Amino acid sequence: MPIRTSAEYIQSLRGRNLKVYLFGELVKEPVDHPMIRPSINAVAETYDLANKEPELATAHSSLIGKRVNRFLHITESRDDLVLQNKMQRKLGQLTGTCFQRCVGMDALNALYSITYDIDEKYHTNYQQRLIDFIKYVQEENLIIGGAMTDPKGDRSKGPTEQEDPDAFVHIVEKRDDGIVIKGAKAHQTGVVNSHWMIVMPTLRLQPNDKDYAVVCAVPVDAPGLTFIYGRQSCDSRSMEGGDIDQGNAMYSGQEAMVIIDNVFVPWKHVFMCGEVEFAAPLVERFTTYHRRSYVCKTGVADVLIGAAAAIADYNGVADATHIRDKLVEMTHLNETIYGAGIASSFESYQLKAGNWLNDDMLANVCKHHVTKLPYEIGRLAQDLGGGAVVTLPSEKDLKSPVTGPLLKKYLKGRKGVDPENRIRVLRLIENMTLGRNAVAFLTESLHGAGSPQAQRIQIARQMQLGYKKKLAKRLAGVKEDEEPEELSSEQQEYFDRIFNLKKHEERKTK
Amino acid sequence: MPIRTSAEYIQSLRGRNLKVYLFGELVKEPVDHPMIRPSINAVAETYDLANKEPELATAHSSLIGKRVNRFLHITESRDDLVLQNKMQRKLGQLTGTCFQRCVGMDALNALYSITYDIDEKYHTNYQQRLIDFIKYVQEENLIIGGAMTDPKGDRSKGPTEQEDPDAFVHIVEKRDDGIVIKGAKAHQTGVVNSHWMIVMPTLRLQPNDKDYAVVCAVPVDAPGLTFIYGRQSCDSRSMEGGDIDQGNAMYSGQEAMVIIDNVFVPWKHVFMCGEVEFAAPLVERFTTYHRRSYVCKTGVADVLIGAAAAIADYNGVADATHIRDKLVEMTHLNETIYGAGIASSFESYQLKAGNWLNDDMLANVCKHHVTKLPYEIGRLAQDLGGGAVVTLPSEKDLKSPVTGPLLKKYLKGRKGVDPENRIRVLRLIENMTLGRNAVAFLTESLHGAGSPQAQRIQIARQMQLGYKKKLAKRLAGVKEDEEPEELSSEQQEYFDRIFNLKKHEERKTK
Amino acid sequence: MPIRTSAEYIQSLRGRNLKVYLFGELVKEPVDHPMIRPSINAVAETYDLANKEPELATAHSSLIGKRVNRFLHITESRDDLVLQNKMQRKLGQLTGTCFQRCVGMDALNALYSITYDIDEKYHTNYQQRLIDFIKYVQEENLIIGGAMTDPKGDRSKGPTEQEDPDAFVHIVEKRDDGIVIKGAKAHQTGVVNSHWMIVMPTLRLQPNDKDYAVVCAVPVDAPGLTFIYGRQSCDSRSMEGGDIDQGNAMYSGQEAMVIIDNVFVPWKHVFMCGEVEFAAPLVERFTTYHRRSYVCKTGVADVLIGAAAAIADYNGVADATHIRDKLVEMTHLNETIYGAGIASSFESYQLKAGNWLNDDMLANVCKHHVTKLPYEIGRLAQDLGGGAVVTLPSEKDLKSPVTGPLLKKYLKGRKGVDPENRIRVLRLIENMTLGRNAVAFLTESLHGAGSPQAQRIQIARQMQLGYKKKLAKRLAGVKEDEEPEELSSEQQEYFDRIFNLKKHEERKTK
Amino acid sequence: MPIRTSAEYIQSLRGRNLKVYLFGELVKEPVDHPMIRPSINAVAETYDLANKEPELATAHSSLIGKRVNRFLHITESRDDLVLQNKMQRKLGQLTGTCFQRCVGMDALNALYSITYDIDEKYHTNYQQRLIDFIKYVQEENLIIGGAMTDPKGDRSKGPTEQEDPDAFVHIVEKRDDGIVIKGAKAHQTGVVNSHWMIVMPTLRLQPNDKDYAVVCAVPVDAPGLTFIYGRQSCDSRSMEGGDIDQGNAMYSGQEAMVIIDNVFVPWKHVFMCGEVEFAAPLVERFTTYHRRSYVCKTGVADVLIGAAAAIADYNGVADATHIRDKLVEMTHLNETIYGAGIASSFESYQLKAGNWLNDDMLANVCKHHVTKLPYEIGRLAQDLGGGAVVTLPSEKDLKSPVTGPLLKKYLKGRKGVDPENRIRVLRLIENMTLGRNAVAFLTESLHGAGSPQAQRIQIARQMQLGYKKKLAKRLAGVKEDEEPEELSSEQQEYFDRIFNLKKHEERKTK
Repeated sequence: MPIRTSAEYIQSLRGRNLKVYLFGELVKEPVDHPMIRPSINAVAETYDLANKEPELATAHSSLIGKRVNRFLHITESRDDLVLQNKMQRKLGQLTGTCFQRCVGMDALNALYSITYDIDEKYHTNYQQRLIDFIKYVQEENLIIGGAMTDPKGDRSKGPTEQEDPDAFVHIVEKRDDGIVIKGAKAHQTGVVNSHWMIVMPTLRLQPNDKDYAVVCAVPVDAPGLTFIYGRQSCDSRSMEGGDIDQGNAMYSGQEAMVIIDNVFVPWKHVFMCGEVEFAAPLVERFTTYHRRSYVCKTGVADVLIGAAAAIADYNGVADATHIRDKLVEMTHLNETIYGAGIASSFESYQLKAGNWLNDDMLANVCKHHVTKLPYEIGRLAQDLGGGAVVTLPSEKDLKSPVTGPLLKKYLKGRKGVDPENRIRVLRLIENMTLGRNAVAFLTESLHGAGSPQAQRIQIARQMQLGYKKKLAKRLAGVKEDEEPEELSSEQQEYFDRIFNLKKHEERKTK
Repeated sequence: MPIRTSAEYIQSLRGRNLKVYLFGELVKEPVDHPMIRPSINAVAETYDLANKEPELATAHSSLIGKRVNRFLHITESRDDLVLQNKMQRKLGQLTGTCFQRCVGMDALNALYSITYDIDEKYHTNYQQRLIDFIKYVQEENLIIGGAMTDPKGDRSKGPTEQEDPDAFVHIVEKRDDGIVIKGAKAHQTGVVNSHWMIVMPTLRLQPNDKDYAVVCAVPVDAPGLTFIYGRQSCDSRSMEGGDIDQGNAMYSGQEAMVIIDNVFVPWKHVFMCGEVEFAAPLVERFTTYHRRSYVCKTGVADVLIGAAAAIADYNGVADATHIRDKLVEMTHLNETIYGAGIASSFESYQLKAGNWLNDDMLANVCKHHVTKLPYEIGRLAQDLGGGAVVTLPSEKDLKSPVTGPLLKKYLKGRKGVDPENRIRVLRLIENMTLGRNAVAFLTESLHGAGSPQAQRIQIARQMQLGYKKKLAKRLAGVKEDEEPEELSSEQQEYFDRIFNLKKHEERKTK
Repeated sequence: MPIRTSAEYIQSLRGRNLKVYLFGELVKEPVDHPMIRPSINAVAETYDLANKEPELATAHSSLIGKRVNRFLHITESRDDLVLQNKMQRKLGQLTGTCFQRCVGMDALNALYSITYDIDEKYHTNYQQRLIDFIKYVQEENLIIGGAMTDPKGDRSKGPTEQEDPDAFVHIVEKRDDGIVIKGAKAHQTGVVNSHWMIVMPTLRLQPNDKDYAVVCAVPVDAPGLTFIYGRQSCDSRSMEGGDIDQGNAMYSGQEAMVIIDNVFVPWKHVFMCGEVEFAAPLVERFTTYHRRSYVCKTGVADVLIGAAAAIADYNGVADATHIRDKLVEMTHLNETIYGAGIASSFESYQLKAGNWLNDDMLANVCKHHVTKLPYEIGRLAQDLGGGAVVTLPSEKDLKSPVTGPLLKKYLKGRKGVDPENRIRVLRLIENMTLGRNAVAFLTESLHGAGSPQAQRIQIARQMQLGYKKKLAKRLAGVKEDEEPEELSSEQQEYFDRIFNLKKHEERKTK
Repeated sequence: MPIRTSAEYIQSLRGRNLKVYLFGELVKEPVDHPMIRPSINAVAETYDLANKEPELATAHSSLIGKRVNRFLHITESRDDLVLQNKMQRKLGQLTGTCFQRCVGMDALNALYSITYDIDEKYHTNYQQRLIDFIKYVQEENLIIGGAMTDPKGDRSKGPTEQEDPDAFVHIVEKRDDGIVIKGAKAHQTGVVNSHWMIVMPTLRLQPNDKDYAVVCAVPVDAPGLTFIYGRQSCDSRSMEGGDIDQGNAMYSGQEAMVIIDNVFVPWKHVFMCGEVEFAAPLVERFTTYHRRSYVCKTGVADVLIGAAAAIADYNGVADATHIRDKLVEMTHLNETIYGAGIASSFESYQLKAGNWLNDDMLANVCKHHVTKLPYEIGRLAQDLGGGAVVTLPSEKDLKSPVTGPLLKKYLKGRKGVDPENRIRVLRLIENMTLGRNAVAFLTESLHGAGSPQAQRIQIARQMQLGYKKKLAKRLAGVKEDEEPEELSSEQQEYFDRIFNLKKHEERKTK
């Protein structure tokens, strides 16, 4: 029976006997662990939103002929991609953190076309297997994690050059009924809250990396899987009782290390097996989707801008020119990210496999801003918050009969403001700039879907210097023999897409 | 007979007896003046592109039932707005400067809905007059300038507070057959190259500013008009002969001061007359269109990026890591502008008048970046160009039998590069960062469609702090009486638009 | 007997029966509290450095005729100010956090000249009282905290306009033997680790604010004082046992709220009492010293740059161009702060009181950079650190026999690196960018010694537009009547100082 | 007879029969050429300042026992270096451009120690020759240009790998009485206004580059020298008559290409001849001096800030918050450069040769800011100036009886402002951001004394990662075998200098 509500989702996580370790101990029931629960709540919002705003958070799936949660949907138009972004911003606004469901969405979409491409070359049947899997998860409305980042060992070396062959996930045995894989995936977003995870390679592979070219779906309670929970800044505040010092007591993100110790995967869940030359396109297509998915951070920043505006109001200085100007700056930066993401989605085009892919250049521009602008937005929020963001006494002091009255007397803002509310907003700013959700808003913005340099490399591949040099030389009156076409056709596609109006007209008919 | 080609356009400008002053003298025939001609060439490209790429640079007009130049088109879909941006980028790529036709396009579109709104309130017939005028210019394929910026005198005072009442254009006489206006418009883009100009107020008006609330169309050869040509950096190089030192000998922008000395306008060309409360919406709607039109600068920057890449290649250092990284940075900044502009156009919505308007917030974000990023792109181009950008000897020295051979010997780059070509590219970089087209690429980017502070004010009006504060307070666990709704409905429309899916679905059906 | 070593200092803090509250409870002995102790260790370093590098961390005091700890020294030359900066950088390098002793140093120096100025006007004897106090603390080698920041209530209102008169510290009774004061001081740096604190007003006062114009010295164990300890991000990790997850287990900063409940101060410790017009100069002179004292953060950043370089090395990518370039950028930003601070100290001049004051403009430029650049340095450190900075499992998992071996296997970097060391460096980066010492490195850099806007106001007061306008008008050939001298002599002193060579020559003789 | 005044200096330039080419023709008398003269005026200011402010612009020379112009002085203390910076700022304020005399100053100082070092190794007598030369130019008070930048051909290749051996200046013949050199020096600052030029290599040389390791002094009227004058943006406005459109009619910079065609240099003027290993230290020491000399740009920026303040005042908006805030920002950026420069000079130390050298790290930080911040200051000046900066009609239109009255009517600002003065200030802003002196303020700031990447390389060499990694590892609790000392002693000198107090104490005794 499909999961329909957040309550049903949370229920579905119970009793799974996952091997989750935290603080050196096996967690009995993750659902009830106070440090884990907020991350489950964040995922659960994706179910509730689908019920409350179905146009935003569900989409019609041609595969099963009904509306499904948009996170499980294979894109059928450019509007589908735009609506992913809008749903992401809304969920960022509702949770103030990472809701952990985008990686799976982007992985399924990337694989949908990559399996098609492999099949076309090798006459394999990966895409059908994948479609069967997608139908199943759409029907059941499951959470899919995407497991990409290998531990990587020495970053200057490839998979087979490592001291330890397990530094990258690889196939250790091929059997009649399936494969056995080994390795680990580092900092896996929301994996403990997922039902399945999709294992994928993390970088371009060489011909002798065959065993590392593996894509497959694995249920998170498969034998051989161990999860070691990642600590977040201020995480243990959720174990202190109370709901103030956490800043955002309801929601958080989640990252865990997944140890894959000889895990068996039946063939029907294997979607790539040795086709090394498709690792790079898979990573590229996944990151094209996923770098634009960071539009979610604009929703998170909406919360932080709201918190900054609220504290300025509580302090009695909401109308000061320099305060207002900083709120404008935060907004300007935030909408810069949004604009680039939406433009990338709008410039989507249909792949041979049938689904739609957003623009690569603009996706990278979007994500590259995400690696910087949230830090500046966070700094400005701290500026408006004042020093109290980092020096407030504890909730227990506020509740104590000795110190409570003193704090309430001296932590007042303007008339009419309850000091506790002022403290709550300050703690939220701390939470989002230094605390638990700063992990999602800052560091994860920096490194998720590829660190800054990865975007610069991809922008370089798309920047079409050959075309631009011709523009310049024409205007400068340069006469010279045509220089050999230095850029491959793939690399020239940016302006082809931008100025190819036939395609544009076609879009209009869709 | 309509103008069909650049040649016919240039012919149409001849013999008009415009009163154009330059260097203290009346210009005999602007078309033949070497300093003016490049600006005419830039406008002429808009005709040629319409012929070469009709899908990009023309659009079907429901008003006259045929395709018209897109610069004269009233938008009928969000795709129309997106395609304006793409046409603008392409023309920036082709000319490397300002092609001067956007103000008219954006003015006509803004007026199309404003006249509708005035008519609705006052039962006037401004829109029909405007439609008649639009049909005429579409049929004839004319150039329309938009004249908005008044000299303004003391910037801290409004129109009626000025010492000189003519500091803002105003009606000095109302007659049975029309009105008489007086004043001036400062730095009017491409006005000498236009057939008509649309006079509009430049700022929010007060009830006693009635005479200043005037919108009308005036042919540029109307009696009473005088044009005083604006100087540009390095402008006189076009009068020296040769084509190297100019950098871009073909194209330039144009700005002139227009003196309006008791000019008569018949009623059929009057589109606002005293309705002061519509001045602000007109300015706002015009700037919403026009701030996004600055996507044109991404095309200009494509040329400059190309020039920077070309000079790096000529110098033999195209593959140096730091050189390549600077080209990536230039591209990243440039596509940031493009993304915001395209997103603004994509988020268009239909107005009551029937035409479409792009998103205001994103338009302002776009333009605000335009006031900064081209300067950084320009700086990076100079970085790659090297000191020679500003120290090259003159073309006459290059052509001299004495110094020419010396310069060719010592201004060589890598093997196989003609030193003259190297010089030409360096001069193009000078042209775009300090010279004639730096006016269009830098300073005009800063001030056109409103200086930076104007965008910040508009972003402030749209930033919806009330909505965002609620998001924050919910997550912080703040409990308090609802605060009075501080923001007007107009100001809340940003997220309404972003998350209003019904409208989105409607769009899909268009 | 004077305190000579860090051990003696720590001993001196024991058994003082301070009323310190933390987590709702009275702390028995702060010295032994695991969450407080690291902040004590940081202060203790100032004693050890004085022994190890006396030229750097001590100075000859003319007041008592011997070398004293430099933090207690009244500046006698510009070199004294420069050496303060160098000592601060060194202590930042040694502790990686705030060592809490600068406020007292800067407060004593500011008061030294302000008491002189008050005495000159009112024939009071404040300076002699202060000198007696300074001699005492120099002899005993004590820790002096400076208590300036009042809770302030509604920021848009002054002291007497507040609902609660205690929102700013004020005199509630004047007696024959002294005064009684009431109020609170928010986020007081290192106050629990101090022996005395100097209470000072926090802003410009008006004539009717007489009771708020109070400066005095109070022992921190005076009856009526209560301290409520401020929470820091990740503070409770120090209570978990272990030394890895803390990142920097040895050192931290400290902020507490001080409640002053009718505390008696004998006259000999009162240094201002009602002279409202000296509140503004006191604040200004204190911030001039103190904004330059933020050079300490360059020492902290040296640690973070080192951590970033270390992790790049452990990951095997120390030589990658983009990694190296980011280390250069971090260094460039860090030395920018250092340069401005040192230049401010170098441009010191002697006050009438005899001690030396650094340059105000450059001190503000220094601090203004400190409000921004550490955030960018922190972001770059996280960039080099990678996602593991925020997703590492806990120390207990590392030490567990079940998960420990797995983590050691999968958290390896390049060959030869002990995974635990890699984890330790990652935790240090977390500590300095999100955790406990991010409070000192980021937020405190933003707000300490005045938030960013405070520096902009002060720069505005010093920017000498009248002088600069004259420079411009001369070169532009402007002829006009002299404009009235718009700027007061005080405001013109920047260039007077810069170009006043007589003073410069005098300095050389010192 | 020594040159004592600006008039005598200008007289000294007459009748020298220099071979200067401009616009394809031999210039008869550069002193009287309207395009060249402003650059001579700028140099001439260095003579007048020495008379008006001798403490600033002269210094006592131990070599000849009297005060000499500071530009000819060999530094004898750290104060000498600081005073160079102050003199540079003052001259920037007086001329608003490049006064062209710093290269010579910095070259003589660099050579003073390098010749000492060569002599020490090879027992040559270069230093004595140099001292004799310095005594002569000090006595005669001459202008010395420094000629460093070779044309360089293919930037990816060294001197001997070039197609044309003359791409770098080299010795073509060694004779008993001297040497003969050939090649060219590109964009030589102020060379036509100099009496002598010092030829130096431009980059690190390899063992087989012996002929390129040449340093010598050459009088600018030596046979075989040809100068081809560099064009600057808007340069020809100085040939139009009038003094408004030039913006700054009095002063400009100057760059020319120098062709060195078999020029003979007697041994007494040869200061390096084949000692290839000293080319790198020479370049490094010269750039250490010279990168800090860019403090001159803060004086130029003072003018531009003044112009921006003046135009805001003329426009009636001097008190608008955002206007004022932009002036603060311009000041903050400008003083950042000043702070780094002054700090570098203050941290000077005595070389073995006896003269003083400023700090390398801080000099590079200073110059690196100079490659960016003036562009932002310029952008802000254009922001305050408004669109009129680039669209004003010509001076001839202003003076014309037809258009003049119209322009005066419509280009008024606030009451009481003469429109011509408003125009003059706008033209000055154009001059400094796009026109002739933008060359000095922007592009020359970018490339002079080494392009941005050159500073990053030098910062990298000084950033002492080994030392910083140790700081980090200590705090992180890392235990590992000492890593081999990765950085050479030279590279570690930054902190040695900063924290080496013995040296500091020694300084105080000087």
